This record gives sequence, structure tokens and C-alpha cells, in this order.
Amino acid sequence: MKADIGLIGLAVMGENLVLNMESKGFTVAVFNRTVEKVDKFVSGRGAGKNFIGCHSIEELCASLERPRKVMMLVKAGQAVDDFIEKVIPFLEEGDIIIDGGNSHYPDTIRRAEYVESKGLLYIGTGVSGGEEGALLGPSIMPGGSPAAWPAVKPIFQKISAQTEAGEPCCEWVGSDGAGHFVKMVHNGIEYGDMQMICEIYQMMKEGLGLSNEEMHEVFTVWNASELDSYLVEITRDILGYKTEAGEAVIDQILDTAGQKGTGKWTAVSALDCGQPLTLIGEAVFARCLSALKDERVAASKVLSGPSVKFDGDKAALVDDLKQALYASKIVSYAQGYQLMRAAAEEHGWKLNNGEIALMWRGGCIIRSAFLGNIKQAFDTDPDLVNLLLDPFFKDAIETAQASWRRVIIKSVELGIPMPAIGAALTYFDGYRSARLPANLLQAQRDYFGAHTYERLDKPRGEFFHTNWTGRGGDTAASTYIV
Amino acid sequence: MKADIGLIGLAVMGENLVLNMESKGFTVAVFNRTVEKVDKFVSGRGAGKNFIGCHSIEELCASLERPRKVMMLVKAGQAVDDFIEKVIPFLEEGDIIIDGGNSHYPDTIRRAEYVESKGLLYIGTGVSGGEEGALLGPSIMPGGSPAAWPAVKPIFQKISAQTEAGEPCCEWVGSDGAGHFVKMVHNGIEYGDMQMICEIYQMMKEGLGLSNEEMHEVFTVWNASELDSYLVEITRDILGYKTEAGEAVIDQILDTAGQKGTGKWTAVSALDCGQPLTLIGEAVFARCLSALKDERVAASKVLSGPSVKFDGDKAALVDDLKQALYASKIVSYAQGYQLMRAAAEEHGWKLNNGEIALMWRGGCIIRSAFLGNIKQAFDTDPDLVNLLLDPFFKDAIETAQASWRRVIIKSVELGIPMPAIGAALTYFDGYRSARLPANLLQAQRDYFGAHTYERLDKPRGEFFHTNWTGRGGDTAASTYIV
Repeated sequence: MKADIGLIGLAVMGENLVLNMESKGFTVAVFNRTVEKVDKFVSGRGAGKNFIGCHSIEELCASLERPRKVMMLVKAGQAVDDFIEKVIPFLEEGDIIIDGGNSHYPDTIRRAEYVESKGLLYIGTGVSGGEEGALLGPSIMPGGSPAAWPAVKPIFQKISAQTEAGEPCCEWVGSDGAGHFVKMVHNGIEYGDMQMICEIYQMMKEGLGLSNEEMHEVFTVWNASELDSYLVEITRDILGYKTEAGEAVIDQILDTAGQKGTGKWTAVSALDCGQPLTLIGEAVFARCLSALKDERVAASKVLSGPSVKFDGDKAALVDDLKQALYASKIVSYAQGYQLMRAAAEEHGWKLNNGEIALMWRGGCIIRSAFLGNIKQAFDTDPDLVNLLLDPFFKDAIETAQASWRRVIIKSVELGIPMPAIGAALTYFDGYRSARLPANLLQAQRDYFGAHTYERLDKPRGEFFHTNWTGRGGDTAASTYIV
Repeated sequence: MKADIGLIGLAVMGENLVLNMESKGFTVAVFNRTVEKVDKFVSGRGAGKNFIGCHSIEELCASLERPRKVMMLVKAGQAVDDFIEKVIPFLEEGDIIIDGGNSHYPDTIRRAEYVESKGLLYIGTGVSGGEEGALLGPSIMPGGSPAAWPAVKPIFQKISAQTEAGEPCCEWVGSDGAGHFVKMVHNGIEYGDMQMICEIYQMMKEGLGLSNEEMHEVFTVWNASELDSYLVEITRDILGYKTEAGEAVIDQILDTAGQKGTGKWTAVSALDCGQPLTLIGEAVFARCLSALKDERVAASKVLSGPSVKFDGDKAALVDDLKQALYASKIVSYAQGYQLMRAAAEEHGWKLNNGEIALMWRGGCIIRSAFLGNIKQAFDTDPDLVNLLLDPFFKDAIETAQASWRRVIIKSVELGIPMPAIGAALTYFDGYRSARLPANLLQAQRDYFGAHTYERLDKPRGEFFHTNWTGRGGDTAASTYIV
């Protein structure tokens, strides 16, 4: 008997993913570099199930139905390249190598090309949902060689999360690195969602003086509203969690977060594509600032803020906070889609925006009711330029905006930082500005560097220079080309 | 007679720089890929002066005193690598290749190592001040092979800008890419300074309804204050500039700005170093948003903002704007120095913070009285962790903060975006926060990914995991290492 798919990498994610596959009726061959893990798994969590334990990659490949599907769940980076080299000799034309790790999409673009040059097929797929998601149904975002999809689709769509309507949270994303790119943006949005909730928490705690129990109640109510989402749900649970000794764990945790991962990649990608992803940018920087704990503690003793205390209606501000969170979330997803649109153009991907919302609808960390509205927006208008322009979201954000502004004003008055939610409001005001002050910026550049400018009353692409000082001459800047 | 230095690349910057050198008593050999330019220059702007026109790189190198100093002012990128290859065969041990273009510092690190491996010396230097600065005295930021500095120093320090006290705005920055790195941060700060002025302009124009003449007056007054700086000065001139037909050029210019240059590099570098350069980040993103002109015009017809109009004391808000600009500028430079400190540690550079302020004090686009205060701060405490902690700047920002907050509140009320100035205030409030809400973020990460957390009541480096759901088990996340 041969296996439907093979997996390399039996850490917890890998174990859970193959247990998921097996539970859906697939036979899975498994291999791990430390081969004792294979035996331990097959005689442990995998006992009595349809697994084929393999002690070599040759054995793994030999045990697979054709076209062979070899999936790696190994550490992103060199390990992926190494395993590709080790697997290739045992594969034949049309066989498929799948990278299910958190690879950076340019690596996936490179590897897809390389593997295809060997006559094989390649898939780089995002898998989101953590360890529990891997076991019970993750969100799966596959991209790579289009010819590989029909062979992999029945497995992936069966093991993925399903929406309430029974749709799989897995669909083909696009060629080469498209799957890992969309997963990266997912993670960037996750950074933003988490940061926004943290800012709300900070304002409730430091500004309003709410207790953990009171905040637990607030998030309980919010999770039954349009904010219904996994991250709001677990925030509710975290705020309600006490140790056996009755201590609130949330109050024991050090306020420093790491970064350098996919959130950073998203911000860098936005800069490279020239797309203003201010909210995710601030979310990444907020993690950087949190990491400077010792500096902050020292600075808190030197720098003083406002002495104002909150003395308004707490319940009213809590409602404003809810509106602010909702409005900012709309901006965050609008920005994420903006980046995907720009990247798709650059890389020649045909991304289906509605399908992406559907993939994120369940299984993954950012799953929410909200993504259902996004799917609807793109179903209605697949070429929607910006989510803010969809009638549903336009109404929602306009309804929320008075509250949103009150929240930011309060944060400024009290000196409680809300970088992501504030950046979202600023983006909203910028995006709806027919005129921004970049005319002055262009004048400055032309003044000191003769960089020229375009004019409001002339067609785009005509460039003008003003001899501002009477000294610089009428010649526009020459580039340094010799 | 031999030349003191040779220059490749006779675009306007190159021409002006060699005219500057010659005027200070140096003989300069010049070469250009299109050799007609050499003859044109030597018989034109260079006529009757100490220039040696060369028609080949061999001739250029042969005409130089030893150690030969060959400076390139060519387009950053491949052209630099190409000229290095072309020059090397005609150089001898101890000769010096100088790149005076806007190269990205990782390239300079690579090139310094390569050129040194050939027994030669390398300098990558930032040159700022535009075309006029090149002619009259630029800010020069050289880094590379330390052994090259004594030979180059007399020339560079003589042609550079000088402060009022007669100090040259040129000093050795550090090894390999340090000079280009510091120039990159300079440019990032320039992005921030320009964006902040634009936001002030936008508020005066759209919020207060000031005329160009009124704004010209405001910037005239400000330029005689602690805001005295080149960019404020040229803003004053720009707002006062009219065509012969009496039209204000500023009102004709299209409000779209390009980016993708050194400002973007600074933001990416900040992300890579994990340093929260929120202001420069927002400044780069603001250019991105400005570029989406058509989208903004379309969105302005769909999305409505607040209907509030300004009805307060205009003069008082103008004074608040001045304070807001000053306070934000302090934050911007604090962030820039934060990045330089982190990068210096990463690359093993010994950056002299005070000298850097001095180099930027004159000649370059961000030159200002303000940089004199920064120099003083680092002279007083060379190891100052953050500029905000210097007594002078602490007082300044605390004095300004009430105005600063009023400005941001007004911008939020009126719906006029101030992304950089707003981000600066948020950073200030974050940096002086002993506790930020990242404890919740860490709880979330531990909840969904068993990523563990540190505790406030335990030493750093001890990691804890909570079984939040009762389902996930007590095992912390294993990485995907097989």
C-alpha cells in the first residue's frame, strides 16, 4: 500500500498536520531528520493509524503514489533548500515538492523556478492556525506550479478549515511565490490586529482604570458583535484567566514583544512597492519600542506627560473604543489589500481578492466575521480599488468616525499612545484628501536639487523647473550618468 | 605637473565639486565616459583653471600624485562597480578609490572589502548639499579604509562647508559603509523634516485658511527663531515666490512626490535593526500616498470627513504649530540617532555622534541651528542613550508638549492628516511609558502559538508558558527543526 502524501518534519505542527490528513482518510508517509522521532510518532500519537514511518528520504519517496507529493514542514531558510536537494534525486517528472513553512516569498519564487527546471513541480503554501489549527483545520494558501494544484487540491481542501457554509479555507492563490506572499500579508495584518487590541486594552486599563474582569466583560460583549473574531475571543479569555492561586497571568507578563518576522517583511514589502501600509508599519515599530523596556523604564523617570486624568463617561468611551477598533480594522485590511494589488501587478499574479478573504475566514489567527464582509465586497466588485470605497465599509467607517476621533483625541490628551489606531485615522484622512501638501515637498526638491515638478494645470508627465533663487539657472537636475 | 585628485563623472554635481576643489588650490584631473564633456568643461567652466582633462581612465590615473585619489560621482549601482573594475588596473598599492555618489551602504561595505583585497584603499562618502552645496561647500561624510583618511582629509575638509566657528562639516565617520550609512540616515531625516513642514503648511492652508503671503510671513519669523534652518528658509522663499505674471508657483504644483530612494532605505534599515523610526516611516509612506493622486481624487468624492471648521484663535494655533514642529523635530533626530546607535553596534562602527551633528550643521539640506544643540548634547554626554533625555531637549519638548497636543487634536477634529507630527507625539508618549501593552500581545502569542513569555517578577531570559485553554498542553512551541 502506498501513501497519498509524504511529510518531512515531525515537530508539533507536522505531527498535527499529518494526524489531520490521516483523520480525513489519507495515508501519510512520514520522515524526520532525527529518525527516532519517526518511530516514536508511529508507535505513539500515530499508533494504529494509516502512517508509513520512513527512515530515509529514499524510503519516503518510494512509498508514495505518483505523482509523488513531498511536503516539508521545516524551519524556513537553508533547511528548505537542503531538503529540496535531498529529495530531488528520488523524484520523477511531474512529482511535487511542497514547502508548508513560513518561507519568504522571494525564496519561494526562486525555488519554484529551480524545481521546475528539474522537470518537477513546486508548491509554496502558507499554513496558518498554529498547532491547533494544523490538527483541526488550518487556513491554507498554496501557490507555485499551477499544474501541481489538481493533485494536491483534494487533500488540502479536505484538511483545511471550513466556513459555516461549508466552503474550504483553501484555494489556489497564484504562481510561484503568491501563496507565501499572501501568507506574509496575513501575518502583517495579524500584527496590526494584535497591536490595535493592545492599544484598546491600554486605554481601558491606563486611561479608564478598568479591571481585568471589566475588560473581560467588554471583550465578551464585543465578540458577539461585528468584532466577532478569534483574536477578540482569546483576548476575552486571557483577561479572564487566573492561576489556581487566583493571580491574573496578564499582569505578570513582561511587556516586550519580539519582531523581525513576517510583520517586518510585510512593512518592507510595502516600502518596496511604494504602498502606504502605515498601520502595519506602526504595529511592527510598536513591537520594537516595546522591546526597549529598560530604556522606557529609565525615560519614564525623566520625561513627564500630561497631568490630565479621564473624568468623562467610561461606558461612552468604551463604546467609542469599539467603533475606533472597528474603523481601524477596516483601514488595516484596506491597506493589506492595497499591497496585494500592487504586488500582484509587479509579479504578474492574478490574485482573487474574494477567495483570499474566504481563505482567511476560518482556521487562521485573523479569522473573523469581518472577513465575510470583505468577501462580499469583492464578490460585488472584484476590481474594487480600495476597501474603503465599498458601500458597506464606507458606511461603517463614516458611522464610526466621530467615535474614532474622540478616542484619538482622548489618547493625545491623556498621553496614552495609540500608534496603530491613530495611523489608521490619519490614513483615512489622507486617502480622502484630493490635495495633500506634497506640492510644497516637490517645490522644495526643485529648489535645492532642481528635481522638477508636474503641474495641476498640465498633463501628467510634463516636468517643470523654477529658478527659485535667481542663481541656480534654468537647467533641471542632471542625473549622475557619465 | 600632477593632479592632487581625479574625478570621474562630469555631471553638474561633479563639475561643481571639482570647481570647488580647484578654487581651494587643488589641481584636479577630470574624466567623463562621454569624453566630449571633458573638453567642453575644460574649455568652458574650467577654462584657465588648474584642471587636467583626460580622455581615458589610464590617462586620468597617470596624471595623479601618489597615493592616487580617484573619486567617482556616477550613478549609484552597477556603474560604480564597473568603474572600480576599470580603475583598478591603473592603480598601485595604497592608492585610493572614492565613491561620492548615493550608494547604499551594504554595497559600500562589499566594495570596501573587495578594493582592500586588491591592496588598495576605499572610501565611500556621502556628499550632501545639492548642486549649490557641491560648488560652495557641501557636507561630506566619508567612511571606508581608515588608512585612506589622512591623504584625503586636507582636500575634503577644505572644500566642505564650514560652521560659523570655522569648523569643517566633514570628519571621518568610520570603517567600510559607515559614511554612506550616515548619509542615508541624513536623507531619512531630510524626508522627515520636509514632511513635517508640509503638514504644518497643510494645516495653515486648509485648517486656518492662511494665504501664501501670510504663510511666507510665518516662515520668515520662524527662520529667525530656534527653527532657523535651510528647509524653513527655502519654504519661506517658495511661499513668497511669484512668476512674472504674478502667479504663485506653489499653487500650480501637482501634489505627488516620488520615493524609493534613501528615505525608504532608512525605514527598511530601521525595521532590520528593530528600531522604531516611526516618523521617517510615516514620511516615506506619506510620499507613497501622495503618489496615489487619482485614487485620492476619486476617494475624496466618496468618503466624507468631519464638518467641523476652525473657529479659534489663528495666531495662537500658529504658535502651537511652531511648538509642534519643534517638538517633532526633536523626536525625529532622536529616532535617527537611535538607528545610528543600533547600526553602529551591529557593524562595529565607532560613530561620533557629536561629529555627525557637526557634519550636518552646515552645507547639507538639513543644516540648522538645531544641530548645534544636538552637538552640544553629545559633547556633554557622548553616550547619551536618547536625545530626549538630554536636559536641553527634555525641557524643550516638555515646554512644547501642550501646544503639540493641541495641534494633533485640531488635526483630528478637522480631519487634516498630520502623519509625521502625530507619529512623533505617539512615539514620545510610548518612549516615556514604563509599561506598554505588549504583555497582552505576548499572552496572545502564547495562547495561539505557545510562544512563551517573560515575567515582570522574574529575571529576563526565563520563559513561561500558560495552558490557557486547558486543551493545548503544557508544552511550549517547538520550532520546525527536524
